[in-house]
Amino acid sequence: MTKDEVKGAAEAEQAQSKKGLKKQQKEAEKAAKKAEKQAKLATEQQGTEEDDFAKDRYGMLPMFQSQEKLERVLVRVQDLTPEKADQLIWLRARVHTSRAKGKQCFLVLRQQQFNVQALVAVGDRASKQMVKFAANITKESIVDVEASVRKVEQKIESCSQQDVELHIERIFVVSQAEPRLPLQLDDAVRPETEGEEEGRATVNQDTRLDNRVIDLRTTTSQAVFRLQSGVCQLFRDTLTNKGFVEIQTPKIISAASEGGANVFTVSYFKTSAYLAQSPQLYKQMCICADFEKVFCVGPWAEDSNTHRHLTEFVGLDIEMAFNYHYHEVIDSITDTMVQIFKGLRDNFQTEIQTVNKQFPSEPFKFLEPTLRLEYTEGVAMLREAGVEMGDEEDLSTPNEKLLGRLVKEKYDTDFYVLDKYPLAVRPFYTMPDPNNMKYSNSYDMFMRGEEILSGAQRVHDPQLLTERAMHHQIDLEKIKSYIDSFRFGAPPHGGGGIGLERVCMLYLGLHNVRQTSMFPRDPKRLTP
Amino acid sequence: MTKDEVKGAAEAEQAQSKKGLKKQQKEAEKAAKKAEKQAKLATEQQGTEEDDFAKDRYGMLPMFQSQEKLERVLVRVQDLTPEKADQLIWLRARVHTSRAKGKQCFLVLRQQQFNVQALVAVGDRASKQMVKFAANITKESIVDVEASVRKVEQKIESCSQQDVELHIERIFVVSQAEPRLPLQLDDAVRPETEGEEEGRATVNQDTRLDNRVIDLRTTTSQAVFRLQSGVCQLFRDTLTNKGFVEIQTPKIISAASEGGANVFTVSYFKTSAYLAQSPQLYKQMCICADFEKVFCVGPWAEDSNTHRHLTEFVGLDIEMAFNYHYHEVIDSITDTMVQIFKGLRDNFQTEIQTVNKQFPSEPFKFLEPTLRLEYTEGVAMLREAGVEMGDEEDLSTPNEKLLGRLVKEKYDTDFYVLDKYPLAVRPFYTMPDPNNMKYSNSYDMFMRGEEILSGAQRVHDPQLLTERAMHHQIDLEKIKSYIDSFRFGAPPHGGGGIGLERVCMLYLGLHNVRQTSMFPRDPKRLTP
Repeated sequence: MTKDEVKGAAEAEQAQSKKGLKKQQKEAEKAAKKAEKQAKLATEQQGTEEDDFAKDRYGMLPMFQSQEKLERVLVRVQDLTPEKADQLIWLRARVHTSRAKGKQCFLVLRQQQFNVQALVAVGDRASKQMVKFAANITKESIVDVEASVRKVEQKIESCSQQDVELHIERIFVVSQAEPRLPLQLDDAVRPETEGEEEGRATVNQDTRLDNRVIDLRTTTSQAVFRLQSGVCQLFRDTLTNKGFVEIQTPKIISAASEGGANVFTVSYFKTSAYLAQSPQLYKQMCICADFEKVFCVGPWAEDSNTHRHLTEFVGLDIEMAFNYHYHEVIDSITDTMVQIFKGLRDNFQTEIQTVNKQFPSEPFKFLEPTLRLEYTEGVAMLREAGVEMGDEEDLSTPNEKLLGRLVKEKYDTDFYVLDKYPLAVRPFYTMPDPNNMKYSNSYDMFMRGEEILSGAQRVHDPQLLTERAMHHQIDLEKIKSYIDSFRFGAPPHGGGGIGLERVCMLYLGLHNVRQTSMFPRDPKRLTP
Repeated sequence: MTKDEVKGAAEAEQAQSKKGLKKQQKEAEKAAKKAEKQAKLATEQQGTEEDDFAKDRYGMLPMFQSQEKLERVLVRVQDLTPEKADQLIWLRARVHTSRAKGKQCFLVLRQQQFNVQALVAVGDRASKQMVKFAANITKESIVDVEASVRKVEQKIESCSQQDVELHIERIFVVSQAEPRLPLQLDDAVRPETEGEEEGRATVNQDTRLDNRVIDLRTTTSQAVFRLQSGVCQLFRDTLTNKGFVEIQTPKIISAASEGGANVFTVSYFKTSAYLAQSPQLYKQMCICADFEKVFCVGPWAEDSNTHRHLTEFVGLDIEMAFNYHYHEVIDSITDTMVQIFKGLRDNFQTEIQTVNKQFPSEPFKFLEPTLRLEYTEGVAMLREAGVEMGDEEDLSTPNEKLLGRLVKEKYDTDFYVLDKYPLAVRPFYTMPDPNNMKYSNSYDMFMRGEEILSGAQRVHDPQLLTERAMHHQIDLEKIKSYIDSFRFGAPPHGGGGIGLERVCMLYLGLHNVRQTSMFPRDPKRLTP
């Protein structure tokens, strides 16, 4: 919320006058006192015996309100290695599990993808009451612990930190979780096969998405979205190094994105507007405006409902002027993809392995340079495999996947380009092939047999563009400012749009794009 | 357009059957032939005399359709320096101006922010017809020229490349501009003072925005948006280095962003949805989902209409868990801003100077560490300057600006933080100050006296959050999934949102946020 939005609320509040302010102050004070009281009570409940020598070593902390600046160093779970043996450290983590056993309580403490075993045992540093307190901390609560790091004889297979455990000397609850979790994290990371074979619980997609904040805490989700962040970074860094400029194009537009149907109407003051379905026209306008090579990362609306579609998806878009041949564009895009694949392979191996534990898949394979096949070659391969289809027919989704398998068998790659699509199946702004008017200077790119990018050389001549738009029965009035952009000198150019969620899904060998969208939107889902 | 969108169009087309395809093919062939014919004609018109020895050295090229792969190196204008003297080079550029003078024609060739003088003169390599052809090329057309680089005796003050000029030996038009430009680029970069004092033309904002593709070609626009791209990159790189993860949050939501008014309604299948006005609730949910430190860059809708508001703006958002005090968050944000300021100062000096030529301003000043004042100190400074205002009153825009001037005088900085705002003027999720319930753990940041960021420690306790929301009369049902996010353990956290366009505007000392939005949206503007 910007300050100015706040102001509206503020003015409304001020109207309530000082009386309102006082009331509010009292309420807040009351709330703070209540919280403090509860904390005290909880501590007292644990320590019923007056003679608890360890009573200052555990308890519920009052709500963190930045009461003081504490210069305490908190160690990261992933840094708990044998080098830290016998050090006394402070750590903040979630209680992943806890298990009381006589005079001891074993905890697993978790931070994102990492976890460590911890132990509170009755002795010099912990009382019976303290162990009982620790055992009663609800799962997913956040705790601060002071503990000494100890090497273990036998590796702890169930934790990411296998060589050490923590001997807790102090434990305080920073934020307490309600006792009943809407889903169990261990269930949420269980491979489906294991669930089926051993009859153990797994979590279905709707439950996951309904309780996304909990589901996102799993090792798998943490890995997926860290990798997604990496894809965006690799995409942008590669293009920035190639001299591309990042642009921001509007998401609220006055007419359909590409002259097609207006899917999502927006109320816009006294008129109507639409949600943009791609940055297509705007990124081309930036080329006409001399930015030469541009990219953008942004959300787009789409009206589809399949395993690989979202109503709102993130597009990684590229557009560039080229010198003589649109294969210069293909080369730039495929090199960008290869840099992404290499970056993931080299820097996100932990994440890939983590996801693989729950969703096993073959490592993603790619060639350098990228394999480029012509559409007619693809059709020939499909026909050889028994598919009947016309020369200028588009690929159906099953045929796309079949072709992916055939290409993998023949060339051993999960990534390739299919070039020179039939003109008839491409949008109006696609440049026709100069040698065969049935085809066009356009291409799709595939990962594991599914399309992740569609692109082309664009028509940069306003006259031909007008003719092509008319042929597609597009209302010229609605794309006037777009066509006019080409009237004052336009360089030959091309580009393409990549679906971020699809790239992540297919790179990791997942099967539903909702797994790679933090808060997915589809025709039936608008929350959370 | 993703492939699947294309498919809809494709199917519609296929329904037209082969007849349609043939017709379309013919049309495209006709168009290509026509273009070729025109090109030929144009060449012939120039070369009426049959004995033109240079007739292969100039002309209109046919539309670039990727007919051939040409291994020709094109030199960049900015690389035309005395080191290249006497080399024969190829260059693609726009004709910025052309001026015929007897047997010579002087051209200024432009690429983005850079330009160079070029000359075609009747002689060995150029005929009278060729000079005439060159003189008739319309401004803003794109040309390929082969030329020899020559050092000049006297610096060419009007060009960015002052030490060399080009002697053209071949010149071909790649894309021809229509003769009547909607605005003159030279007018569009003229400082207003010069326009007023010397009675020379300048271009008003609406004309610029109506013809944005031309206006974006000016040196000033090129510099502004390259710098904007730099701000995004510096923001993300700094945060990535600090261990932040990039997130993508939904822009289509089921209820108002922060429980407030729903400004923009979207038709959503059989129901209604809203455009998100900020990622506030979602970025906090990511903190509850253990991402610890997150950022996002995305478009948000806002219902305001001032010199510093856009209906659609790009937000640079930060949210992070902290250990003990929300000043850890302030420190992270101010350090990020300082890294941005330094990066701009060190790597975008050309852009800054270019903008300054048209819009003079003082260099942006900042301190390390960043100045942090408390709200009460700010109010005291204003009162000392004669302003009458209450302790818990919000800052009006004029008072904000005045305070900016007072701070600049006293501390010599254009960037500072105002901390501990009155609780009453902040949103419901703001954490109250633990020592004085009238105030809160919240802050704004200012550049040249205008607010660019609003932020706070957030309430992470679901009970207090509920109480605060009720106090603000927010419908709890609408923010249920948000409040529920805090029920299963939530770390103390805080953050803020930065307006990208504002940062660029204020850093460069510009005066309207429309200058730093490529295709601005306001209540009256939805196009281009």
